[in-house]
Amino acid sequence: MALKLAKKGRGYVSPNPLVGAVIVKDGRIIGRGYHQRYGGNHAEINALKNASEDVAGSTLYVTLEPCCHEGKTPPCIDSITKNKIARVVIGTIDSNPLVSCQSINYLQSCGIEVKTGVLETECRNLNEVFFHFMETKLPFVTVKYAQTLDGRIATATGQSQWISSATSLKFTHKLRAAHDAILVGAGTVIKDNPELTVRLVRGRNPLRVIVDSALNIPGQSKVLQNLSKNKTIIATIKKAGDPQFQRLANLGAEIITIDADKQGNVDLKKLLELLAKRNISSLLIEGGAQIITSILINNLANRLVTIIAPKILGKGIEAVGDLKINNLDLAKKLSIRKIVRSGEDIIIDSRLTQIGN
Amino acid sequence: MALKLAKKGRGYVSPNPLVGAVIVKDGRIIGRGYHQRYGGNHAEINALKNASEDVAGSTLYVTLEPCCHEGKTPPCIDSITKNKIARVVIGTIDSNPLVSCQSINYLQSCGIEVKTGVLETECRNLNEVFFHFMETKLPFVTVKYAQTLDGRIATATGQSQWISSATSLKFTHKLRAAHDAILVGAGTVIKDNPELTVRLVRGRNPLRVIVDSALNIPGQSKVLQNLSKNKTIIATIKKAGDPQFQRLANLGAEIITIDADKQGNVDLKKLLELLAKRNISSLLIEGGAQIITSILINNLANRLVTIIAPKILGKGIEAVGDLKINNLDLAKKLSIRKIVRSGEDIIIDSRLTQIGN
Repeated sequence: MALKLAKKGRGYVSPNPLVGAVIVKDGRIIGRGYHQRYGGNHAEINALKNASEDVAGSTLYVTLEPCCHEGKTPPCIDSITKNKIARVVIGTIDSNPLVSCQSINYLQSCGIEVKTGVLETECRNLNEVFFHFMETKLPFVTVKYAQTLDGRIATATGQSQWISSATSLKFTHKLRAAHDAILVGAGTVIKDNPELTVRLVRGRNPLRVIVDSALNIPGQSKVLQNLSKNKTIIATIKKAGDPQFQRLANLGAEIITIDADKQGNVDLKKLLELLAKRNISSLLIEGGAQIITSILINNLANRLVTIIAPKILGKGIEAVGDLKINNLDLAKKLSIRKIVRSGEDIIIDSRLTQIGN
Repeated sequence: MALKLAKKGRGYVSPNPLVGAVIVKDGRIIGRGYHQRYGGNHAEINALKNASEDVAGSTLYVTLEPCCHEGKTPPCIDSITKNKIARVVIGTIDSNPLVSCQSINYLQSCGIEVKTGVLETECRNLNEVFFHFMETKLPFVTVKYAQTLDGRIATATGQSQWISSATSLKFTHKLRAAHDAILVGAGTVIKDNPELTVRLVRGRNPLRVIVDSALNIPGQSKVLQNLSKNKTIIATIKKAGDPQFQRLANLGAEIITIDADKQGNVDLKKLLELLAKRNISSLLIEGGAQIITSILINNLANRLVTIIAPKILGKGIEAVGDLKINNLDLAKKLSIRKIVRSGEDIIIDSRLTQIGN
């Protein structure tokens, strides 16, 4: 029930995690609450406030370890002790270094019984972006592409518009709105000239990040328009002073120089680290094949959203290039979270498992 | 209701079509029936026999045009007129040339009101193999393969066992049992040495057909064993007298010579025509990539069963090679019939639309 309550905050609490809480006394539910909006009360406080009777001696069920630090609101552990809660059942510990187990220790030192790790996987999945960002200092990376059933994202000559249906395009815009930033390679900008904004659904525009090692994108690219409203960062290996650098800088885009990787392209891990420092906790990668392959080979992808159009194209361009995998046992493993129909298409939403292997 | 009844015969009536019938009088259902087993009563007869009262003046609903020819049982149209049925509602006409609209004409000439084309698509889909076989004199071709989410059926070095799960292997055996014949290319026999029999589920073994233009498969191949029990046909462009022909013929396999296509390989359409003449109405193609590509490029595939393993392999071997399609609009279109989970895998069962285009 606490998990269900937590989900009601989706879309309103970011960058805070979703949290739900339930108070039980003598086998009866006497209070429920969830974190409703960023800056508002935490779930525990709402459950305490909503309680239908005195909570002394009751059990508090909460999806995430209560906080112990003064933030936008006072620490929850104080309210728990003050209200004489007897037992706290916690879904998962909070990996935020300001909390991480300190609250559990404090509650126990106050004589409160604490149990942790109940439905832990579900509680971690609920806030997968939050946990990944906290624990790795890297954005949670979603790779999204549309392919034919036989795995092609474009014809051999590069035609890719439109593989998927209008319904799936709307889905893509929804996905964009749910991410802090969106990233594509220069090739995609040159070939498709996308705007990379949220237009087909309501939602804020994510930061646009273009990986353009050689600074090749044309000045009239759509991603370089309306820069005052929608920000664009261009990541390159070129340094200020380079004429191409100057050309694009003059248009108002922010250009950041990143070290080159072994292949002489922008080192994507370093770029991700830099984005994380700018508080980008979730990043959507929309192509092309070179960026997707590079992200996968470097184990930087967390989630894969594959839109499958009910078509067979035959020879063409594949989303995923050479991952240097010569043994089936070493193929990257996915855990399927959801399969949905989207117009004529099928959307497979999965997570990469064994990341870092 | 007639459609539902018809489905109860699945697995028992082949090569006859599935048929269901319902008799309605004054708004009440007074009889139901379906074709229960090959050689047994037709659906209409069972519905008449099961009728709870006099059927005179009633309406007969039947998924397929009633028969007008003496087969294993007397013609159904005689029973319909004899029993004074007033109206017949037919799902779809029977494309069997012995029937095709003749029954409808006869019933009308007897003063019976006839309506056709009610839920026609559903009634045709119910017996898609039967209709295809009747109308084209070619087997209904199902192409089945297991791929990673990124469309690879093997590593670059050819390793393909096992991309899919044990559950999907069982599904494959079930699919085999439901087909009259199973076909693979010589490459698959040489590389994987499959037995191509039904072992993991109950069911009869389909005829095995090996396309081996140059007659290269080794004599100790599993498909050449137990030939007295499980028949194998090898299709080649070589003629009797060729030493390779003799080598394999000596092992007891039937070898048939087919004209070469433009590429110098067995002409698959001619092979399919020959199989149809031998009463093979359904053919399962299990690979490899060359055969699958050739079947698709020649518009000979009707159904595509794609097992998707939750893995990303990157560069490897794709199921579908060059189809000479350079424009997305010309990609082969699929109509998705079913998406099911099979262990960790996803099975997408689809039909190729616009066949012949």
